[in-house]
Amino acid sequence: MAEPTPGPVHLTADAVAALRPLPLTATTVADDSLWGTWLRRNAVRTLPHCVRQLDASGAVDNLRRVTGEVDGEFRNMWFADSDVHKTLEAVAWQLARTPEDLELRSFLDTTAALLVKAQGEDGYLNSYFTVAKPAQRWQELHWSHELYCAGHLIQAAVAAARAGVGAEIVTVARRFADLIVDRFAEVDAVDGHPEIETALVELYRMTGHRPYLDLAKRFIDLRGHGLLNPDRFGPVYLQDHVPVRQAEEVAGHAVRQLYLLAGVVDVAVETHDAELLAAAKRLWEDAFGSKTYLTGAHGSRHRDEAFGDPYELPADRAYAETCAAIASFQWNWRMLLATGDVRHADEMERVLHNAIAGSIAADGQHFFYSNPLHLRTGHDGSHEDAPSERLPWYSCACCPPNLARLMASLPGYAVTTDHSGLQIQLYTAGDIETTVDGEPVHIAVRTNYPWDGRIEITVTTDTPLTLGLRIPNWCAKDGVRLDGSPVVPADGYLQLRRDWQSGVTLTLELPMPVRVVRPHSRIDAVRGCVALARGPLVYCVEQADLPDGVTLEDVQIDPSAPVVVNHAPAVTLTMRGSVRRADTDLYPVAIDDAADPITITALPYFLWGNRKPGPMRVWLPVT
Amino acid sequence: MAEPTPGPVHLTADAVAALRPLPLTATTVADDSLWGTWLRRNAVRTLPHCVRQLDASGAVDNLRRVTGEVDGEFRNMWFADSDVHKTLEAVAWQLARTPEDLELRSFLDTTAALLVKAQGEDGYLNSYFTVAKPAQRWQELHWSHELYCAGHLIQAAVAAARAGVGAEIVTVARRFADLIVDRFAEVDAVDGHPEIETALVELYRMTGHRPYLDLAKRFIDLRGHGLLNPDRFGPVYLQDHVPVRQAEEVAGHAVRQLYLLAGVVDVAVETHDAELLAAAKRLWEDAFGSKTYLTGAHGSRHRDEAFGDPYELPADRAYAETCAAIASFQWNWRMLLATGDVRHADEMERVLHNAIAGSIAADGQHFFYSNPLHLRTGHDGSHEDAPSERLPWYSCACCPPNLARLMASLPGYAVTTDHSGLQIQLYTAGDIETTVDGEPVHIAVRTNYPWDGRIEITVTTDTPLTLGLRIPNWCAKDGVRLDGSPVVPADGYLQLRRDWQSGVTLTLELPMPVRVVRPHSRIDAVRGCVALARGPLVYCVEQADLPDGVTLEDVQIDPSAPVVVNHAPAVTLTMRGSVRRADTDLYPVAIDDAADPITITALPYFLWGNRKPGPMRVWLPVT
Repeated sequence: MAEPTPGPVHLTADAVAALRPLPLTATTVADDSLWGTWLRRNAVRTLPHCVRQLDASGAVDNLRRVTGEVDGEFRNMWFADSDVHKTLEAVAWQLARTPEDLELRSFLDTTAALLVKAQGEDGYLNSYFTVAKPAQRWQELHWSHELYCAGHLIQAAVAAARAGVGAEIVTVARRFADLIVDRFAEVDAVDGHPEIETALVELYRMTGHRPYLDLAKRFIDLRGHGLLNPDRFGPVYLQDHVPVRQAEEVAGHAVRQLYLLAGVVDVAVETHDAELLAAAKRLWEDAFGSKTYLTGAHGSRHRDEAFGDPYELPADRAYAETCAAIASFQWNWRMLLATGDVRHADEMERVLHNAIAGSIAADGQHFFYSNPLHLRTGHDGSHEDAPSERLPWYSCACCPPNLARLMASLPGYAVTTDHSGLQIQLYTAGDIETTVDGEPVHIAVRTNYPWDGRIEITVTTDTPLTLGLRIPNWCAKDGVRLDGSPVVPADGYLQLRRDWQSGVTLTLELPMPVRVVRPHSRIDAVRGCVALARGPLVYCVEQADLPDGVTLEDVQIDPSAPVVVNHAPAVTLTMRGSVRRADTDLYPVAIDDAADPITITALPYFLWGNRKPGPMRVWLPVT
Repeated sequence: MAEPTPGPVHLTADAVAALRPLPLTATTVADDSLWGTWLRRNAVRTLPHCVRQLDASGAVDNLRRVTGEVDGEFRNMWFADSDVHKTLEAVAWQLARTPEDLELRSFLDTTAALLVKAQGEDGYLNSYFTVAKPAQRWQELHWSHELYCAGHLIQAAVAAARAGVGAEIVTVARRFADLIVDRFAEVDAVDGHPEIETALVELYRMTGHRPYLDLAKRFIDLRGHGLLNPDRFGPVYLQDHVPVRQAEEVAGHAVRQLYLLAGVVDVAVETHDAELLAAAKRLWEDAFGSKTYLTGAHGSRHRDEAFGDPYELPADRAYAETCAAIASFQWNWRMLLATGDVRHADEMERVLHNAIAGSIAADGQHFFYSNPLHLRTGHDGSHEDAPSERLPWYSCACCPPNLARLMASLPGYAVTTDHSGLQIQLYTAGDIETTVDGEPVHIAVRTNYPWDGRIEITVTTDTPLTLGLRIPNWCAKDGVRLDGSPVVPADGYLQLRRDWQSGVTLTLELPMPVRVVRPHSRIDAVRGCVALARGPLVYCVEQADLPDGVTLEDVQIDPSAPVVVNHAPAVTLTMRGSVRRADTDLYPVAIDDAADPITITALPYFLWGNRKPGPMRVWLPVT
């Protein structure tokens, strides 16, 4: 058995955390599971697509401009290096799991060699500033993204090191990180876009080199003191309006806020900073109490790509950026490890299976940047930030490679461990091979989850072990059964301490009735509507399933009508609904709610937009 | 009697139009009417405030930089000249009505002299490009606003000429206009921000110089052919995505779209272009059929300050820019004159009394740029485009002087004339003095409108005259009475042909019950809510009228509950409502709609935000 590859957030032994991750390679996902299709698609469709797009868009050429191999002006966004770095990270995680992929290996090696050549003698590496603005280096951090790009380079290096590939990247990243430590360890400055913080902590975890951790902590504590020039964006957008330790609300640019909070937890657990962790918990309650979409997405406003006011959650204008959903997943992973609070695993499951999974087309090569819960009839899809269908790439291409790196490392998030045992946090068919107290443990998980809530778990080990099974928050607690008998979870887990020597098979049954979900009474945007959900999946209705001549906005349902569950193999739902006759006046005084019956089909949100482009909605008006 | 001063849109004799305006000075508004308070406040509070702010903000200094009187860098937005020009226009209209105002006269004369000095030898006049980017003159029309600023200068000159003040401004504007004709009469180019079109038509009306009209037509027909560099904003934002004649939908930046459409109607009526007028009518149906707020405001998105998709009308994130409301008023005025369709007068009344009137504080010196229909509890008011209260000025200060010029010219929009008589379009207490067929006509209007629907009209004239009285669209047609007897309007007007020699007094009664208004079934953002309205006024509920501890978002009403109408002197409404207990979960499955009774007070929307800043909402959830 090869040395296990640690996945994202490989805590140091000294970290104060309730849980620790299993290695990335400990969990093997079954090919025929939903996750299995995602992982394979990521490897054979998405990653090669990203590699081609980086080349076609000129992002790699920017680095070649530094080395003199290519002429001409810098292309793409000024932070396009980060797209290369994120793809490298994704490829590294992928190679940890499928080292035989020669095409990806070739990209990694070629790009690593290019980075080596592109790096300055002092360690600086940023193609935009080197090519286009050499005199402005480090001078305009409010918009420059230099430390953001450096962070992604470092994360790529950490993944490569853990995967045992691309040693050159590690050297490059450490040289750059050392330059950054030299430059910023005693200077009051932060980057307008957080990312470096969590990267530096991961690099510290990998190297044990304390200055990286110290600088991450420094960057976090320096925020909110007006160090960033606010002229262009304002301090809230830049996460510079309040020190994190004092913040009461998530606000501003959602990706910036969530990346920052991931770094906050990283620093808190590695430096034993209870105040910092308390701030993260407080902000989590705010985010998930009043600023989260049903799909787990964040960011209510296109303007500034920002969080909104409490309960401001428009379905049609949901910005719900893919990167924010991924950031939420990463933040919740760190919160789960730090606290052991099951709610973080619940949020990881929700955002993964809805907002994140829905951001990519079935073909693995088209992406949403923004993930609304309603695409209107008559939508003007001419704007890149709210297209009518997924696009193959974006001028700001942050999302696709971000998705690729998450998917490539996905098995690393399924299972955690603590001093007494293992916890299955995210369910998928597959096998877990690890050791507890030096003794081998094998767990076989057989299930058709998330299409079905029946999960067969076979544990084989000679060591005493408490197996924790997460009971999802969507699950009616009185319906959970183990081997046919009702069981009552505690704090969101079923904790099983058994004699596993016989290779016992357990059957966990999580009931999955269709749930008719309502919005909080303060969410105006979808008042008078309900959404359908089943298991971790949110459902939606698409124009493609409506008869010609019916406008999606006129469709309504009776929430008490029976719902038929169709297994085929993605579970769809059908029910009787009605088509309201649209009002004549824009603001009528009299009501005419006449309606004609119709059969409505709902499909998982994450599958929308895979037929011809057209309107979609998650929230349906009630009759 | 002094020569009457024509107001905005003084059609040529050759124009093809159903109606013509009365002179600005024909209508005298009663001091104690609502309009009277607005006009006085504009003259004594808002205009002096604008003059001071132009000085304090450095907008006037920019022009002094051109003349060398002031050093230093250009300040404010690059199109800040237009704020000076709009204030000049407002002052000119004001001086037409109150020529004795020496303070305003002094500003006009001083600024006119400055403009004379600042104008280039060739006639060019734009402080930003002259001071900061002389080499870029006319080179970057997609963002430069050069023709936009020129348009506002021309409009100031037209107002000054009609008011018989500031002859220097007229000379300056004509020199610049002639330069623009020379420069653009045979070049394919348009400005990224429409405004020059309507200005050139007004200048043509004033001078009879045909090249101005020809160039306005040219600018309109050149739009939509991709002449503008779309890199920074995209073609829709710039109104360059489709030729106006082919456009089916209003789209993009709302102010740009509406200014353009005002110019479209101006060109259509002066060049007898039926196709162009048909395009304006088509776009009007789209705008007012699915993209208009209950307050008459336009612009559903902060992103790009833009129209949204059909029925995308969020109350909380309504951009609803003050300038767009003013532009809608101006467009509808031109549409009313062109077509005689009463719906345009209805929209002028609605937007004036709600969106426009609400943009300014009772003190006349604080302004909203954006006019939402809901300010949430917990609103983050740190962003200038969505503050929690009206601000004294803006970094982009387009709205306050725009409001000032509309208010200063308001009496010019009240009454129209056609070949057979006069039409009272907008009701206010006051007196109309004019001539029809050379014979003097005096009409005295006595009313407490809009607080009361009883209107006494005394007409004195020796000439045959048909008096048209607009019956507003909010009015139940079967309730209208004239001198106590039911009357039936035709096409929105009561047309009265009477013998007026005796100075007869008519009493028109427009019933004003409280209306419970509902949103169109496709407007998701306020589904399940109703709004209260009475006469032309939309009402709202403010936190300031709720007991401590009650959150505005928890308040709901029973639409069938009786409403008490309080006259004091602004009419407020009170009714029984209830306070829902806020849900615990963000997305609950079970409903708990328990509620406690409460008394709700609603006040006219245009008066909101005049006590301590706090939440407000127009649309109230129903029990």
